[in-house]
This record gives sequence, C-alpha cells and structure tokens, in this order.
Amino acid sequence: MTISPISRYPVPELKDLPQDMRERILKVQEKSGFVPNVFLVLAHRPEEFRAFFAYHDALMEKESGLTKAEREMIVVATSAANHCLYCIVAHGAILRIYAKNPLVADQVAVNYRKADISQRQRAMLAFAMKVAVNSVAIDDADFTALREHGFTDEDIWDIGAIAAFFALSNRMANMISMRPNDEFYLMGRAPRL
Amino acid sequence: MTISPISRYPVPELKDLPQDMRERILKVQEKSGFVPNVFLVLAHRPEEFRAFFAYHDALMEKESGLTKAEREMIVVATSAANHCLYCIVAHGAILRIYAKNPLVADQVAVNYRKADISQRQRAMLAFAMKVAVNSVAIDDADFTALREHGFTDEDIWDIGAIAAFFALSNRMANMISMRPNDEFYLMGRAPRL
Amino acid sequence: MTISPISRYPVPELKDLPQDMRERILKVQEKSGFVPNVFLVLAHRPEEFRAFFAYHDALMEKESGLTKAEREMIVVATSAANHCLYCIVAHGAILRIYAKNPLVADQVAVNYRKADISQRQRAMLAFAMKVAVNSVAIDDADFTALREHGFTDEDIWDIGAIAAFFALSNRMANMISMRPNDEFYLMGRAPRL
Amino acid sequence: MTISPISRYPVPELKDLPQDMRERILKVQEKSGFVPNVFLVLAHRPEEFRAFFAYHDALMEKESGLTKAEREMIVVATSAANHCLYCIVAHGAILRIYAKNPLVADQVAVNYRKADISQRQRAMLAFAMKVAVNSVAIDDADFTALREHGFTDEDIWDIGAIAAFFALSNRMANMISMRPNDEFYLMGRAPRL
Amino acid sequence: MTISPISRYPVPELKDLPQDMRERILKVQEKSGFVPNVFLVLAHRPEEFRAFFAYHDALMEKESGLTKAEREMIVVATSAANHCLYCIVAHGAILRIYAKNPLVADQVAVNYRKADISQRQRAMLAFAMKVAVNSVAIDDADFTALREHGFTDEDIWDIGAIAAFFALSNRMANMISMRPNDEFYLMGRAPRL
Amino acid sequence: MTISPISRYPVPELKDLPQDMRERILKVQEKSGFVPNVFLVLAHRPEEFRAFFAYHDALMEKESGLTKAEREMIVVATSAANHCLYCIVAHGAILRIYAKNPLVADQVAVNYRKADISQRQRAMLAFAMKVAVNSVAIDDADFTALREHGFTDEDIWDIGAIAAFFALSNRMANMISMRPNDEFYLMGRAPRL
Repeated sequence: MTISPISRYPVPELKDLPQDMRERILKVQEKSGFVPNVFLVLAHRPEEFRAFFAYHDALMEKESGLTKAEREMIVVATSAANHCLYCIVAHGAILRIYAKNPLVADQVAVNYRKADISQRQRAMLAFAMKVAVNSVAIDDADFTALREHGFTDEDIWDIGAIAAFFALSNRMANMISMRPNDEFYLMGRAPRL
Repeated sequence: MTISPISRYPVPELKDLPQDMRERILKVQEKSGFVPNVFLVLAHRPEEFRAFFAYHDALMEKESGLTKAEREMIVVATSAANHCLYCIVAHGAILRIYAKNPLVADQVAVNYRKADISQRQRAMLAFAMKVAVNSVAIDDADFTALREHGFTDEDIWDIGAIAAFFALSNRMANMISMRPNDEFYLMGRAPRL
Repeated sequence: MTISPISRYPVPELKDLPQDMRERILKVQEKSGFVPNVFLVLAHRPEEFRAFFAYHDALMEKESGLTKAEREMIVVATSAANHCLYCIVAHGAILRIYAKNPLVADQVAVNYRKADISQRQRAMLAFAMKVAVNSVAIDDADFTALREHGFTDEDIWDIGAIAAFFALSNRMANMISMRPNDEFYLMGRAPRL
Repeated sequence: MTISPISRYPVPELKDLPQDMRERILKVQEKSGFVPNVFLVLAHRPEEFRAFFAYHDALMEKESGLTKAEREMIVVATSAANHCLYCIVAHGAILRIYAKNPLVADQVAVNYRKADISQRQRAMLAFAMKVAVNSVAIDDADFTALREHGFTDEDIWDIGAIAAFFALSNRMANMISMRPNDEFYLMGRAPRL
Repeated sequence: MTISPISRYPVPELKDLPQDMRERILKVQEKSGFVPNVFLVLAHRPEEFRAFFAYHDALMEKESGLTKAEREMIVVATSAANHCLYCIVAHGAILRIYAKNPLVADQVAVNYRKADISQRQRAMLAFAMKVAVNSVAIDDADFTALREHGFTDEDIWDIGAIAAFFALSNRMANMISMRPNDEFYLMGRAPRL
Repeated sequence: MTISPISRYPVPELKDLPQDMRERILKVQEKSGFVPNVFLVLAHRPEEFRAFFAYHDALMEKESGLTKAEREMIVVATSAANHCLYCIVAHGAILRIYAKNPLVADQVAVNYRKADISQRQRAMLAFAMKVAVNSVAIDDADFTALREHGFTDEDIWDIGAIAAFFALSNRMANMISMRPNDEFYLMGRAPRL
C-alpha cells in the first residue's frame, strides 16, 4: 500500500503565505479543528487561490433560496459525476453535518433518484447534473420544471452556478491529485438519535 | 425527507422462510449483529435466493489467489461503475474491515487509479472494470498484462467472475430499489491507530 | 482463418466430472443432440457451474407470466447490447424454436423496436435493455409503464432478473472467449410454412 | 405479432420504373432468384437510386486489394455498429456465400475481435469501425498500422470508403424502416462439408 | 506551424481529368471564383467522384419543401456532430450566403437549440441529428413530430437523406484529411445591413 | 427567425453598476471598441462577477510558459467539447488575433489533431481535452508526455487550470443562454498577406 501525497505540486508552509491567505486558513482551522487540504494545495498559486475562494464564498456562504445542505447536495452529486475524490469526501462530510443525516451524502453520490430527499430536491439535482454533464441541452423546459417545484430564477442560477463552479473544482483536484484529509471520512457519521 | 423502504417488493418474515434459508440468515445475523437487507429482500424468491448465495459463496468464500480484501475491492469498484448503492455501501463496509483501512472503500469507489493500493491491485481493478463495462473488448493483451503482475489464469477467472456476478447483483438491487442497512455506513470507519 | 477454441481455459472431459454435473449434461445432450459448449466450459469450476445453472433454471424453466419465447427475447436483446456472441447465437436458436419464427432472433438482436413482435413485447424489451445498460435510472415510471401493458410486478421481476442474470453470463462468456457450437447457427431457420 | 411492411414510403411497381432501373433490377433478380428490397424501396427516388447504386458498384464490384468477402465483412461489422437490420441480414448472407463460411457473418456482426478471420482482417475491421464511429480521431498512426499488415494506401481508401458508404446506407435503411427479404436470413448457412 | 496539404492522397491535375469531370469542375470554378478542394481531392477516384456528386445534386439541387438554406443547416449541424472540418467550413459559407445571415452557420454548428432559426427549423435539425447519431432509435413518433411542424413525408425523406449523405461525406473527408479552401472561412461574413 | 436576447436573466445597465465593475467594463470597451456581453450578463451577480474575472485574469493575463495564443487555443478546443457558443465565438476571435491566423480558431474548434499547429501544441490540447472531458483518468503518464514536449509542471498547471476554468465558464454561458456579440464573428478573419 502506498499513501499518496496531498498534491502533485509543492505545498507551501503556512508561515510562508501572504497575510490574507494565512488568516483565512487559520480561521478555517479554528472552526474545523484541522486545515482542509484544498487550502494548502491551492495556496501554491496565490492569485488563483484568492479568486477560487472568493467565488466559492459568493455561492456557498451567501443568503439563498437553497439551504446550505441543499447546496452541498449539489456539490456531492456533481462531484460524483466527475469522479472527484476530494470533493465527494470533503463536501460529503459537510453535507452530513448540515443535513444532520449520516446517510444522505453516500446516497446522493451514488444515485440521487433514490436518496432520502424530497421530490423538490430531486428536481434540483436533476438540473445540477444536466449542467454538469450535458449543459448544451439546457432549454426553457428545464426552467419551467424547476419553477413548478417553487424555485425562483435566482435559485436556478444558484443551482447552475454551484454545479459550474465544482466543474472547475473537480477538474483541478483531479489534475493535482488532491488528497482529502483523513478526518473528513468519518465526520458526521454518528447515527441519528 | 422520505425514508424509502428496503424493497419495492414484499419482504417475507424470517419465521415464514424455509428452514435452510432461515438458518443461513440466522448465521449471518449472529456473525454481523444484524441481518443485511439483501437476505430479506431476495428471500422473496427462494429458488433465486439459493442460487444467488451459492454463487456468491463460490466466489467470495473460497480459497483464492486474491485476498478477501481484494475481492471486496472488485465488488466496490464495479458496483460504483454500475451506481449500485446497496453494494457500494455494504461491500464498502466489508472492504474497510478486511483491509483494516477506513479510507480505501471510498477511494476505490470514486477512482481506483488514485486509491492507496498497490500497482498490482490497480491492474486487477482495471481488468475488473473492463469486464464490468466493456467486456466485448477483452483480448489476449489483458491476460498478458495481468500475468505480468503475477496473477495466474485462475486468479484472472476469479477477478472476472466477481465482476460478472456483481453485474447481476447491482442490476437486481437497482431494479428492486434495495436499501442498505443503516449499520453499514459507519462500519470499519474507526481511524487507524 | 483461425478457428478459435471453445474456451481460454482448460475444458474438462465429461468422464472426469462429478456425477450430478455429468447427468445434467447428458440430459441436455439427449434433448438437443449435442452438448452446448457452455456446459463444458463452465464445468471448469464445479461450484460456479452448479450455482449458474440453478440460477438459470430458476428463471428460465419456471412458470411465469412470460412465455419461454419472451424470456429468450430478453436474453437475445440484452446479450446483443453486451456483444456476447455465445448468448446471441445459442439463445437466438432457442428463441427461433420457441417462437416458431426463423426471423425474430436476428430482428431482436439488432433493433427490438422494429422486430415483428407485439407492442407489449417491445415495452418488455425496453425495460430489459434499461436493466442491462442503465439500471441506475430505473424508477417508478418504468413500473407504471409495464403495468399498463398488463405485466404484474412478478412479471417485471422476471424481466429484470433475466436481464441481470445474462449481464453475468455475457461477461463470463466474453472473458472466457466462449465459442458457440456450430449447430446453433442454423437451428430453427427453416422458413415458416 | 405484426409483420412490418418493407418501407415507410410508397414502393413503386417494377413495371412503372424507368427502363434503366427496371433492367438493373431484373438482372439482380435473375442472379439472386428474388429482388432484394433495397432496390424496390430506394426506387421511390430514381435520381438517388441511380447515384446510390453507382456508388455501391464503384466500391463493391471493382478490382481491389480487398477480396469481395473482405468488403462484405466491412459492411457487416460497421452496419452492426449502426444497428441496421437490413444491411446486417442482407450483407451477412452475401458474406457467408463469398467466404464459403456459414459462421463468419454472425461472428463479425457481434465482435470482430473474436471472429474466425486473420489478424490482417481484424486490423482492417478495426480501421473500418474507427471510420464508422470515431472518424475525427483518424491519424497517421492508423495508416501506419494498416501498412504493416500489407495494405496499400489504395486499399485503405477502399476500407474507409466502404465504411463511409454504409454509414449512409445504414441511416437511410433505419429512417425508411427498410425490411430485409426473408430469403436472406437462411442464405449461405448450409454447414461446411 | 505546419500547413497541412489538401489530401493524404495524390491530387490529380485538372488537365488530366476526363472531360465530364473537368467540365463540372470548371463550371463550379466559374460560379465560385475558385475550385473547392472536395472536387480535386475526390477526383482521385473518378467513378466514386461521379456517384458522389450525382448523389449530392439529387439532394441539394432539386426542388424540395426545404429551402436551400435549410438544407445547408442540416449539413452544418450534422457535420459538426461528426467533427468534419471541411464540411463545417465549406457548407457553413454556403449557408451564410443562402440565409443572408453571417451568424447562423456558427450557431448551428455549436448548438442548433439556440440558433436564430424558427421552431420548425429546430425540429428539422433535431431529426437530422437523430439520423446522424442515433438512427437505430427512429420511430413513428419522430415522423409525427415533424408532420406537426408542417413537413410532408417527402420533406422528411429529404432531411434524413441529407443527414445520411453527409454521414458518408464527413467520414471520407476525415479519412482523407481533406482541407477546406482558405476562401470559405471568410465568405458570407459581411455583417447584415 | 428569432434573435435571442443576450441572457435569460436581467442585464444591468452600466450606469447602475458599482464603480469597480463599471471601470473594468469601460476599460474593455476602450480596448475592444465594444462591451463583450459576458461582462454585462455576469454583472447580474456582482460578487460572482468579481471572482470570475479575477480568476480569468490570474490565468489568462499573467506571465506563463504558454503564449497568449496557446491559452486561447485551450479555451476554444475545450469550449467546443462543451458546445459553448459564447466562448467558441468570442475566444475564437481573440485566438485569431493573437495567432495572427484567420483559420486556426475554426480548425481547433472542430479537430485539434488536424489544425495548423505544432506537435507540442497538439500535445497541450490533448491534455486540455482530457481535463475537460475525462479528468478522472489523468495520471503520471500524462505529465510525462507533456514534459517530453518541454512543458514544465507549472505550464501543465496552466493548461489544466485554463481547461478547468472554462469548464465553469462554458456551463454558466449555456445555462444563461449567453449570446456572443455579433462583432466577434468577423474579428481577425482578414486573410494573411
């Protein structure tokens, strides 16, 4: 057995990073108890790092018609379509925690059609998957179907933009061979009481 | 949120099953601490049940040039290619336990090329995936490549037969909407010490 | 021109087989006039042989809402999707005989949508093909569509289980390079009178 | 069971056709003993009929480094990739006759890699299949590989042009629902002596 | 940068061609101001040349329920599906000229669903694309859908036949590495006034 | 004919935008002579706008081992794989200008294997396409192949990151139905002198 490194590329040390990046990373560490590898790996390119996390936060941290758990469902489902280990494992953990559900991440990663989620959430994921794998075929009928489930056009932008952003993220992680922290695998798996 | 049932079809009660099936199931329950749903769900058709588990045991329980962990890797990798939730979750748990490795099941399910396994195991999984998704193209070169990794022709039969058996199993589980027991999700995830 | 052997693996002689296997094979020989190669080739692994044919018989020999010809249609259509020469040729012969129709096997193998079969049979094959190549997407709508053609849920299990069993069989035959007996190619082709 | 008609479109009567087309068809009838449906079905459009058969003859009747049996192998393999019943059945019959081999057509239609043909013929069919399904990726390496099997550049044009012509033919037959004559199914199937 | 030649094969000189071919080519040159490379490249095989252009003219020059611009849309959309540079560039130019629209060719080549064309034309292209990439699945419902847009059955034959003819043409051009004349890239791009 | 709008979503007016965004847009307008629609369309979401262009500039404006023309080749080739009209048309124009080559954009969009570019550039685009459509399969051999063409590991990151960023961009444009400005279609097409 070989344990692969966390990146194909050099990984900078925290102390060598610019102030703004180091602060951002320390804040995450404080909240999570560890530094998710994506921060260290992408820090190899500071400008791209800053744009990446600015984009991420603009979609994942803002107010939205989608709950945070729903946004993580989109990440997990589309990252599975792209076979991105880092995003499935890390965002799967976050999804379990936000949804307070130890099963939903694996369910959504394998087949959203049969996950323990609502019909509305299934429609959301069907659209996210279309953005991820067949965006050429998106048309008015897709928007109509989502509106019938109560999604506004701004919600639809959110769904599509998250799927699009992780299309980028998944490809970067696959190219870099980004390794998820061991901690993520177990997070949020304690059974419901 | 809707919790889906364990099967689209009626699930017999243990007490109503023929003696041989009941004994088999009780033996598993004793060993695992619970009855994996596949036993209850497939018991709807006793003749098929008996053939299914006879086939399973002939491949998974026998002496082989493949370790039990390696056989479970084949199950997990090919079941992921077929998007079968039951087999990924249940056999992922068994793989973690046999391999004494809490990470390997998720790694193999997403991308065997980057899992923490040996080159020999990667070659094994590459062949298993070809059996699973493109068996028409199997040719002598595939056998040569595996022999170069030290696999005998009987080992190769084992690899292919496991991939083929779970091609059946995955399709049955997807048709039936077979639900994995909640217990499997957490099994074997305690971190290595 | 090279005539390929009937298997990549050693083929046991009838006289060296266990009693139960030899009896089964002699019975087939008596009925068909020759021993289909699948019996000899799979006899290389007695335990798997017994489970394989027990499973086969549980699906193909039992009482069912599907006629024997319909069950063979499922075999031929899905084996064509998997490009399995043995099953297309051998079960194509059986289909011609059961259906008393010299054309239907080739039609179903190439494009079930245009075969000389009923609309009900087309719906049956559409579902079998979904089980064969895209089982992740099976949902309630598939069951509803089949019920509208008069299929019971037990019939639907039969359709899916046959498609699933031959998913296994096709992959084994492709891995082993199992060669169909020359006799099958001509069987049942005498024109309708 | 419904027997489908030979075409979705009106089929002209022989007596109503222009002289040149009628003569061509009568000549085929004399040689084959029946009129293959492709002649009647395409006669619906005389100008296209004339161009179609002029093209066909320019490839299939001329002197070539490929035998007539080899040219029919190309037709059968690529028509199977396009799921065209008419061409598989009709040209399968012609292939069996030219090759004096009752098995080769079904073998080539399902998986040319395992047919009873030479390595040179397998290389020929690998290229024909690339022209049929992935012509964008053709490059110098494909030409080099064929030259190593002794094919001249003119032979390679022949291989590619036959695959290209039947790309047209298969699509026309599928659009028109062209039905093969019953006679083709049995032709050339008498066993080798 | 390497400028590739116009063909992998020898290109005959105009003066060495048979009279009928030379006349045809000179006529095109007079009309267009240059000789499109397809004429020179295919002239390597006179019989095939004659059949090719007879077929082309039978579809593209005749009276039809489709306008000439509509026929060129079919060529461009399906040639893009086949990744054929020659046909996209040359017929894109012709489409711009016939449609008096400098944008429509690029739009149709990338995604006909969003081109500045009518709903009727989108339905036409949806069918043409099905003929091009999935003709096995054509059925009565496709004909019904086109009739609802006012297409006659003869129009539908035209749509399908053009898609089928360029399935041939695209594969020939890709095999031969046929290079479009530089002139085509700019033709018809002057903005609308 | 219907001319589609430049976005499915409301497009803000320049005067209503925040100062930083307005300045950025006016600067582009000054340079190009018009405002590319992507600026107006994405301005609907200011935070995402800022992150998008920060990311874009970090990849496309910086010093790199790739020329600006090479970076645009990556955009055009991968955007074609994703069928994104906006990016093919707009970045095709930029590529023609940077490369001072009126043909290369259309060539790269259809089939980079046959474009008038160097072998090194073909290797670059082969990797970019793998990132775009099959990133799960990236492995060490891909890095080795690029290093043999003289690319450094930082160059490889650039190639992959551009392909990844436009995976995002293409999906956004397809979801939004972003329309390219008419001006782009003609830019850079004047023939080489």
